[in-house]
Amino acid sequence: MSRVYNFSPGPAALPEPVLRQAAEEMLDWRGAGCGVMEMSHRGKEFGAIVEQAESDLRALLAIPANYRVLFLQGGATQQFAQIPMNLLAGGSADYVVTGAWSAKADREAQRIAAAIGGRVRVAASTEAGGFRGLPPPGVMDADPTASYLHLCTNETVHGVEVHDLAGLLPASPVPVVADMSSHILSRPVDVARYGMIYAGAQKNIGPSGLVVVVIRDDLLGRAWAGTPSVLDYKAMADNGSMLNTPPTYAIYVAGLVFQWLKAQGGLAAIEAINIEKARLLYDFLDASDFYDNFVEASCRSRMNIPFLLRDERLNDAFLAEAREAGLVQLKGHKSVGGMRASIYNAMPLEGVQALVAFMRDFAARHG
Amino acid sequence: MSRVYNFSPGPAALPEPVLRQAAEEMLDWRGAGCGVMEMSHRGKEFGAIVEQAESDLRALLAIPANYRVLFLQGGATQQFAQIPMNLLAGGSADYVVTGAWSAKADREAQRIAAAIGGRVRVAASTEAGGFRGLPPPGVMDADPTASYLHLCTNETVHGVEVHDLAGLLPASPVPVVADMSSHILSRPVDVARYGMIYAGAQKNIGPSGLVVVVIRDDLLGRAWAGTPSVLDYKAMADNGSMLNTPPTYAIYVAGLVFQWLKAQGGLAAIEAINIEKARLLYDFLDASDFYDNFVEASCRSRMNIPFLLRDERLNDAFLAEAREAGLVQLKGHKSVGGMRASIYNAMPLEGVQALVAFMRDFAARHG
Repeated sequence: MSRVYNFSPGPAALPEPVLRQAAEEMLDWRGAGCGVMEMSHRGKEFGAIVEQAESDLRALLAIPANYRVLFLQGGATQQFAQIPMNLLAGGSADYVVTGAWSAKADREAQRIAAAIGGRVRVAASTEAGGFRGLPPPGVMDADPTASYLHLCTNETVHGVEVHDLAGLLPASPVPVVADMSSHILSRPVDVARYGMIYAGAQKNIGPSGLVVVVIRDDLLGRAWAGTPSVLDYKAMADNGSMLNTPPTYAIYVAGLVFQWLKAQGGLAAIEAINIEKARLLYDFLDASDFYDNFVEASCRSRMNIPFLLRDERLNDAFLAEAREAGLVQLKGHKSVGGMRASIYNAMPLEGVQALVAFMRDFAARHG
Repeated sequence: MSRVYNFSPGPAALPEPVLRQAAEEMLDWRGAGCGVMEMSHRGKEFGAIVEQAESDLRALLAIPANYRVLFLQGGATQQFAQIPMNLLAGGSADYVVTGAWSAKADREAQRIAAAIGGRVRVAASTEAGGFRGLPPPGVMDADPTASYLHLCTNETVHGVEVHDLAGLLPASPVPVVADMSSHILSRPVDVARYGMIYAGAQKNIGPSGLVVVVIRDDLLGRAWAGTPSVLDYKAMADNGSMLNTPPTYAIYVAGLVFQWLKAQGGLAAIEAINIEKARLLYDFLDASDFYDNFVEASCRSRMNIPFLLRDERLNDAFLAEAREAGLVQLKGHKSVGGMRASIYNAMPLEGVQALVAFMRDFAARHG
């Protein structure tokens, strides 16, 4: 078996120790006589697994007691509809559009609001500038009476990350709802600054098919009357995410990832490594005239780093030779072009070092 | 490692060869250099996995070409809302209520219809009789102009199975929508008799977090305007179930189960074994005056077999001694009481033999 360095934006690489443990426990979880996939979600074994997972996630993110943790399905895209269904309450919501994902969230919310009643506004958008930065101070047209304000704190496609929430958003009682899919658990976060945080699991948490929602108590119970039961945050919170059968195996693997993160020293420790990984790649890009990164320096993502070869005719050769070198899934999203290296928590420093070494060598041979 | 016989109603036992293969391929799927959980859903490796899974499922169920196969999330309970959102189209729908699950489907559809417009009727219900049988011929009050008629062809909690659809439902152009969660793939089925079939995976297909929908082409495109994108069957059909990231690992394991089923000889072969397993247990129950089964003989489920100890004071001892004997998850649903043995495809004949031997011995010692 030879493992590659996998730069996929998601589903993404998982820590090897997590995969090894999952493989070892596949037929018999710690003497239960069956694997986790085969366990009743109502039994004491799985109950222990989900409790440990929630407890570890709460510890990692320092989630205050007045927030509920939900393990749901449908990914972030389903949340784009669930959020207005649960939180709009006939009012108006603000959307900050800073890349492909927040744009999708806005479009879906517009459609849902038109059907259930309520209004969705764009408080700021960087689309005209090609999604290369965040709205400058003073540009935000925020409604102080909005039901909520939605933003995406790390844009997976465009590589734009919010490093300074206070600088972006004026203080306001409006609940902030943040899609953190592609950088959750990559750094400490002040959960209390948000009304709700959500994240599809398949980048920094675990397998696809799981979405984690962290929501403040007072935002529960506002859902539109026609909200499907399993899409109602309150119904799920009241039933410990088990109104129906949850994605048990995905929750188990997420729990193993949380344990692995704790063993790394928690989010401050993983952030230090993530800073080092990102700096290594950005410093190389900035010093190169063969490659180019186009995101404003103040909001470059540590997780998703898009870059271009200045001579785009070399793209196919770059991808083919990278694959030969054991570096895969580097092709950029079609809306941006070029390349993208997604370097989530599970990507070791050695993987980024190998990428930079390959890129240097490729440039020397083709420059 | 010592594996138990696991009679859980779901998530349920999986075939050992499937689990062994999944464990072996966890870190490296057939030389890809990464596991299935880590693969981009847009890559050629996962593309091959999902294509093979669909092709095998089509072969097993002999799905006609004018039906689409969708791999979705949210379980059957989410379908209870999705079905009226997609198919009601402002009209009226009929529900046949024969147990806990079809009753839940009816309640959720009533709530959704009230919010989006349309009507949900109960065409027949066996609730007054305690859900011990199917509606007798002539009792069905079916609306020939309904948008669809919904039924559950195997009630997991009450152990009632539809063995003769033609005897239950008069011929009609109304599309029949069937929840087959707990007996799909246990027997051949004439797909063309249905407008739509759906099944949560966690009984006879694979891990929880995946739901399979088989839907006739002409039923696509009728969704209510406020249907969330990922809940819209047409949007999912148009995108090969990948409007967003699907539950990739669950689809992979389901694909391994389909391969295992083909290796067993397909659905006719597995049905023969399922008939033998069910007969063994029902014959024992019928000959016993220590145990009791209360479902009408003509509609006893082959998959979920509820039974009572006539002296209910022995229930705890039964469960404790069964566990000692390596027979687990036999406790009945709280709404029915007593015991329930769920004997899906992955339960070998030897497991049912061991259960009957234990039950005989227990009765001899306590009778």
